[in-house]
Amino acid sequence: MPPLLTLTTDFGARDPYVAAMKGVILGRCPGAQIIDLTHDIAPHNVLEAALFLAGAIPYFPEGTVHCVVVDPGVGTGRLALAVSVDGHVFVCPDNGVLTLFLRSHTLDEARSIADPAFMRDAVSPTFHGRDIFAPAAAALVSGVPLSALGREVKDLMQLDIPKVTVTDDGRLVGEVIHIDRFGNCITNIHRGRLGASAVNEVGVGAHNLPGIARTYGDVLPGTALALFGSSDHLEIAVNQSSAAKELGVSVGDRVRVSF
Amino acid sequence: MPPLLTLTTDFGARDPYVAAMKGVILGRCPGAQIIDLTHDIAPHNVLEAALFLAGAIPYFPEGTVHCVVVDPGVGTGRLALAVSVDGHVFVCPDNGVLTLFLRSHTLDEARSIADPAFMRDAVSPTFHGRDIFAPAAAALVSGVPLSALGREVKDLMQLDIPKVTVTDDGRLVGEVIHIDRFGNCITNIHRGRLGASAVNEVGVGAHNLPGIARTYGDVLPGTALALFGSSDHLEIAVNQSSAAKELGVSVGDRVRVSF
Amino acid sequence: MPPLLTLTTDFGARDPYVAAMKGVILGRCPGAQIIDLTHDIAPHNVLEAALFLAGAIPYFPEGTVHCVVVDPGVGTGRLALAVSVDGHVFVCPDNGVLTLFLRSHTLDEARSIADPAFMRDAVSPTFHGRDIFAPAAAALVSGVPLSALGREVKDLMQLDIPKVTVTDDGRLVGEVIHIDRFGNCITNIHRGRLGASAVNEVGVGAHNLPGIARTYGDVLPGTALALFGSSDHLEIAVNQSSAAKELGVSVGDRVRVSF
Repeated sequence: MPPLLTLTTDFGARDPYVAAMKGVILGRCPGAQIIDLTHDIAPHNVLEAALFLAGAIPYFPEGTVHCVVVDPGVGTGRLALAVSVDGHVFVCPDNGVLTLFLRSHTLDEARSIADPAFMRDAVSPTFHGRDIFAPAAAALVSGVPLSALGREVKDLMQLDIPKVTVTDDGRLVGEVIHIDRFGNCITNIHRGRLGASAVNEVGVGAHNLPGIARTYGDVLPGTALALFGSSDHLEIAVNQSSAAKELGVSVGDRVRVSF
Repeated sequence: MPPLLTLTTDFGARDPYVAAMKGVILGRCPGAQIIDLTHDIAPHNVLEAALFLAGAIPYFPEGTVHCVVVDPGVGTGRLALAVSVDGHVFVCPDNGVLTLFLRSHTLDEARSIADPAFMRDAVSPTFHGRDIFAPAAAALVSGVPLSALGREVKDLMQLDIPKVTVTDDGRLVGEVIHIDRFGNCITNIHRGRLGASAVNEVGVGAHNLPGIARTYGDVLPGTALALFGSSDHLEIAVNQSSAAKELGVSVGDRVRVSF
Repeated sequence: MPPLLTLTTDFGARDPYVAAMKGVILGRCPGAQIIDLTHDIAPHNVLEAALFLAGAIPYFPEGTVHCVVVDPGVGTGRLALAVSVDGHVFVCPDNGVLTLFLRSHTLDEARSIADPAFMRDAVSPTFHGRDIFAPAAAALVSGVPLSALGREVKDLMQLDIPKVTVTDDGRLVGEVIHIDRFGNCITNIHRGRLGASAVNEVGVGAHNLPGIARTYGDVLPGTALALFGSSDHLEIAVNQSSAAKELGVSVGDRVRVSF
């Protein structure tokens, strides 16, 4: 089996940045299997990348090396990390991008990438993806142990993630944290928060939806519904259309659940 | 040679859906070679996916497993299929996405994917790509026979594809069924429909183009032409520009051929 | 190690063109490792592709076969080339797409792809990517020597690339040649042109920026700066935002450097 390595960036596909990283990896670890996860994270949007990783990484086999470069602080004092979390291995900037994944998984070990033996000879202050993260990922996937890269790091940066609150009369209030390609509006309200009580109504803006459906096709095309999506978060959708457009919902909008 | 598997979806790249499918496949069939065909099918557009497959699959070696997830009916009663067509293997929803490919190829066998042994333990009603189609594709590419997945299915769903008609005075009337990235307007009129008669004029809207050119560069940049594209369908193009924009053409517009 | 082959096109992902090329390659060279570099070059934009290759190819191991199809002249008299440059192998149309890469690398050998043994049986005049370049790339990556494909070609087409000029009072004047996904405005002024003199000011339109910064994070978010990017070209950027939008810069705009 070839060594397995994935890429997640905000570099898009028009520029040669991802291609340069792939070249560096294949030069240092010939035969590595490189899997593109996404290069379409919104530029500099660390929270979007954190949500992406939480939805994608759990499905990969342990031991996979994930190279994550959404890095607005490139070239500043922020650390470059190599991290093992329940056997999943990451290289990424220390900017909170693992915050959500770490909520449901256990940190094994985190190291600062510091040994120049695992970097390109010249390190550009604007492109650590090519010069630090790609070579470090190639080293790890070739069998170099995490501990060889640098000193241990105890406290990783954490993102401030919007929290779900409970009102005095027992309603849950969360918010839309992501709108997907279909216009489904995904909230920060996890299935586990609802307990056994039956949901009476889910509200967003002026729209109130009765109860929780099972899947999109449970309602007529063009009709809005609330349901738990494939990552067990409460989601507002419109069957075969875009809830974001039809209901005028944006990221950050409040979502109310009453019982 | 690694087992070969392709992916075709309408999931885009911003969301973790495709990445989750790749993780599931690589967890169940380590070393599988995963080839992205497209994730940019317009959301829920089964006809666009059917056209895509007809233009792409014939070039792949037989035995390749093609995982196709454009699935507006996810979680409803529609069947999940595993299908062999002239040795090309597909897993896809039963929604007509193979309609066009089946016009020029022969169905070997179709099965309903029903055995939970080839699904993820928990099946989300909103994401069969991850929980049913990816594991089924991984099983097939690992050598599990089609017949192990479920009972035989005799009649696959068929899409209603626009037909070419002949007018009383012998003209052909078809329509634009796809506009590609270059703005080329591809019609449902196949080269085989024209026979030996010389084409006098090809019309779309108020534009009438004289005869059939061989390639884009046969006319000056900015000039419109009609030609047979690389899939042998009649196409309206503008050399080095977009016919869709320059001539104001949309999918569904009528195209007339006179002799 | 599997044979390694990369793809660079202006085909986008919505249409079946790239998928068809991948099928042809895998049919002729089973097990080949196919790496997508980009399919998002602007349609017909050979200069953009030339810039892309100059920024990506140097990082790949020698011997990699790069299949490049940005080909506005498809089906006309332009040659189809197989080229070796410092051990990097390309198949591409003879339209100048290697102009920039050849400025810093040495041409080993160029051949016209002419032997039908290395083409598909039927060659469409509108899709040489599928019918000529993909099969030629598959042949080369399978070990067929360059010389087998056709006769030697001595003079490759060259693009006219904007030049940097020096004013009477010693200022450099270049221009913006690319705007990347982040809105960074990359110029044709290479670090090597500046010599040892300290830069006093970098100007674009009505904006004058003091000296050269090291990385984006050297200034406050939202602040403009000039710096050398990861390919050693002078670049105008805005920390954590888009210089193109914030400063109203377009490709072709002049950039002035004074000492």
